Amino acid sequence: MSRDVAIIGVGQTKFTRNYQGSLREMVFEAFAEALRDAGITAREIGASLICSAPEYDKQRSPAGLLAEYLGLNPQPTFVLESICSSSTTGVRVGYSLIKAGLHDVVAVIGFQKMSEISSAESQERMGRGADIMWEAPFGSMMPAYYAMHAQAHFARYGTTEEDLALIRVKASKYGALNERAVFRKELTVEQCLNSAVVSSPLKVYDCCANADGASCLILANADRAKAISAKPVWILGLGAASETMSLTGREALDGLRAARLAAREAYQMAGLTPGEIDVAEVHDCFTIAELMAYEDLGFAEPGKGVELIRNGQTSLGGRIPVNVDGGLLSKGHPIGATGGSQVRTIVLQLRGEAGPMQVPGAEIGLVHNIGGVGIYSNVIILGR
Amino acid sequence: MSRDVAIIGVGQTKFTRNYQGSLREMVFEAFAEALRDAGITAREIGASLICSAPEYDKQRSPAGLLAEYLGLNPQPTFVLESICSSSTTGVRVGYSLIKAGLHDVVAVIGFQKMSEISSAESQERMGRGADIMWEAPFGSMMPAYYAMHAQAHFARYGTTEEDLALIRVKASKYGALNERAVFRKELTVEQCLNSAVVSSPLKVYDCCANADGASCLILANADRAKAISAKPVWILGLGAASETMSLTGREALDGLRAARLAAREAYQMAGLTPGEIDVAEVHDCFTIAELMAYEDLGFAEPGKGVELIRNGQTSLGGRIPVNVDGGLLSKGHPIGATGGSQVRTIVLQLRGEAGPMQVPGAEIGLVHNIGGVGIYSNVIILGR
Repeated sequence: MSRDVAIIGVGQTKFTRNYQGSLREMVFEAFAEALRDAGITAREIGASLICSAPEYDKQRSPAGLLAEYLGLNPQPTFVLESICSSSTTGVRVGYSLIKAGLHDVVAVIGFQKMSEISSAESQERMGRGADIMWEAPFGSMMPAYYAMHAQAHFARYGTTEEDLALIRVKASKYGALNERAVFRKELTVEQCLNSAVVSSPLKVYDCCANADGASCLILANADRAKAISAKPVWILGLGAASETMSLTGREALDGLRAARLAAREAYQMAGLTPGEIDVAEVHDCFTIAELMAYEDLGFAEPGKGVELIRNGQTSLGGRIPVNVDGGLLSKGHPIGATGGSQVRTIVLQLRGEAGPMQVPGAEIGLVHNIGGVGIYSNVIILGR
Repeated sequence: MSRDVAIIGVGQTKFTRNYQGSLREMVFEAFAEALRDAGITAREIGASLICSAPEYDKQRSPAGLLAEYLGLNPQPTFVLESICSSSTTGVRVGYSLIKAGLHDVVAVIGFQKMSEISSAESQERMGRGADIMWEAPFGSMMPAYYAMHAQAHFARYGTTEEDLALIRVKASKYGALNERAVFRKELTVEQCLNSAVVSSPLKVYDCCANADGASCLILANADRAKAISAKPVWILGLGAASETMSLTGREALDGLRAARLAAREAYQMAGLTPGEIDVAEVHDCFTIAELMAYEDLGFAEPGKGVELIRNGQTSLGGRIPVNVDGGLLSKGHPIGATGGSQVRTIVLQLRGEAGPMQVPGAEIGLVHNIGGVGIYSNVIILGR
């Protein structure tokens, strides 16, 4: 198990539906927190990776603007994008820049200010994230895609709408504990089942919501990490994979192949098995996505993920607590910031600093971050 | 001098003002040529880096689409952007992924299909690449920014409009030899000086033009490179830096600080000096940019760059031939594809395959690729 690159600082804004300030101010808030957390200054950062889905930004090429505002000139900077998994792609690239010896310390900055554009414009642009020649023109949208996944899972394994509701109920319970989440109200199964249908079987409470927010992770090589940080959290395993953008080209819809492949690679690099993970953050953009993640990550056999949620095994005190910060469903989903927020949660867990959300004695954590409908997948295994 | 990562295959479409085909077909053309050149199949590629400035793409998150179309699923893929220097940022990241041991072979794919959006829309979006709070609202545009650089250089060093015309004349001479260039007509100093003023002192022939095009580079680690390629070209030095997006914040405008810093870093990593470079490709988005590059790269002392062009020292047969493929001025500038095209030219030079543009016996080559008005800068030194 290699301990070459560590995360030595984490920061995140409160996620919100409409951030009251400029993009640069929002990002600065997360960046400044990460610097304070790491105990370093901007001058010690060798490169900044700006992770964002550009369709939501009025500012083009925000890396230039942000590096200037954050005091990161003349260090190299650039933009990375794999839609909703952009900031875990940032972790992968940051790890590589450090391991390759080009930099000692790298900042991975993720953000999205989705309120900058109208909801209609947002839908149009999000739709263009599907194949604009063969799928987007037919009106494909994220909820419809994930609804097809849910229908496939229901048909094959007998999963029910109540099972999905249980996932949202769990998310709402932990969202209530998380001061940085958008939605902090506890929900009941009945409320979830009675919410308006978006794309059958998915209802309003099965879907996460657009949000504004920023996250920042400071990565360092082993020498710097040990010199700077009392509690470095090490990157033990990394896995990444892609899948056809067109759902029509996929073998099956009851899981995400890219997630399975990325997980396998990450476990292999870390020399660990699913049973050795103490706490996980998975990409629950929709309730069905969390259920598929249980199976794609090997926490349950295919079709058996429902048993975990029905028996409370993914809650605090269960076998493998998942999204005990409320997940995307409660926190909101500011595209480029989400992966960084997931990693931050796991880092706090492994440092024993997760407060009321703490999984006692957590030593190994996992992050599962998906771009689009499983087009991109990153799995990261962290250890203290 | 490290020989850990090599370029084993290069490909490029003809650059054109209006590509007759879809984005995916255009990119496939460059990709297929690079695969043939390397003598490998898509299955041997471990990851693909998609380099593009998203403001010109109708397709959002094109990495997913292109990885599917090129047969690169389920390998990881993502988008990289530093505007006009995106594909040399791709080389930096590809080098790191390989050196870090995450992949053996990586494809760096750059493209832009600028004809997809209207010229007015393009101007609006390009303007948003300046600070949208403090500069873009005042109508800042690329020619105006570079015109300010030219005025500063004129004022400090006595450079003239004729000097800039000499640079375009040289570019046109070599553009005439390059079958992949948009502009292949030889120009005279008089024609350049008599062309319409865009932003004084820059005239039409001082400016490069929007274009459609794609480029592809195949990178491999030393073991794979030696096994696959008879003529690997090694990445000897890499340098990168950033500069304030706001021109008002810069110390001086008679050069680009980021280019100077990136060059210093690349020379240091390669253990080489400017005098040891046999052939160079520099980012001549405007004539003044090539002149500043001579000085920023150390080919001439500050203010002495004009002597190189006046005395033919940057032409074939001169001390340091620069842009003997016609440069951006003749080839056209399909943003994301440009850096890859520059690297391709140097790779062909070092393999002795540059045809009528060949610099005899070239062993060491340099690429200088700039994003925005020197906001981003990449310098790459290659050797056979």
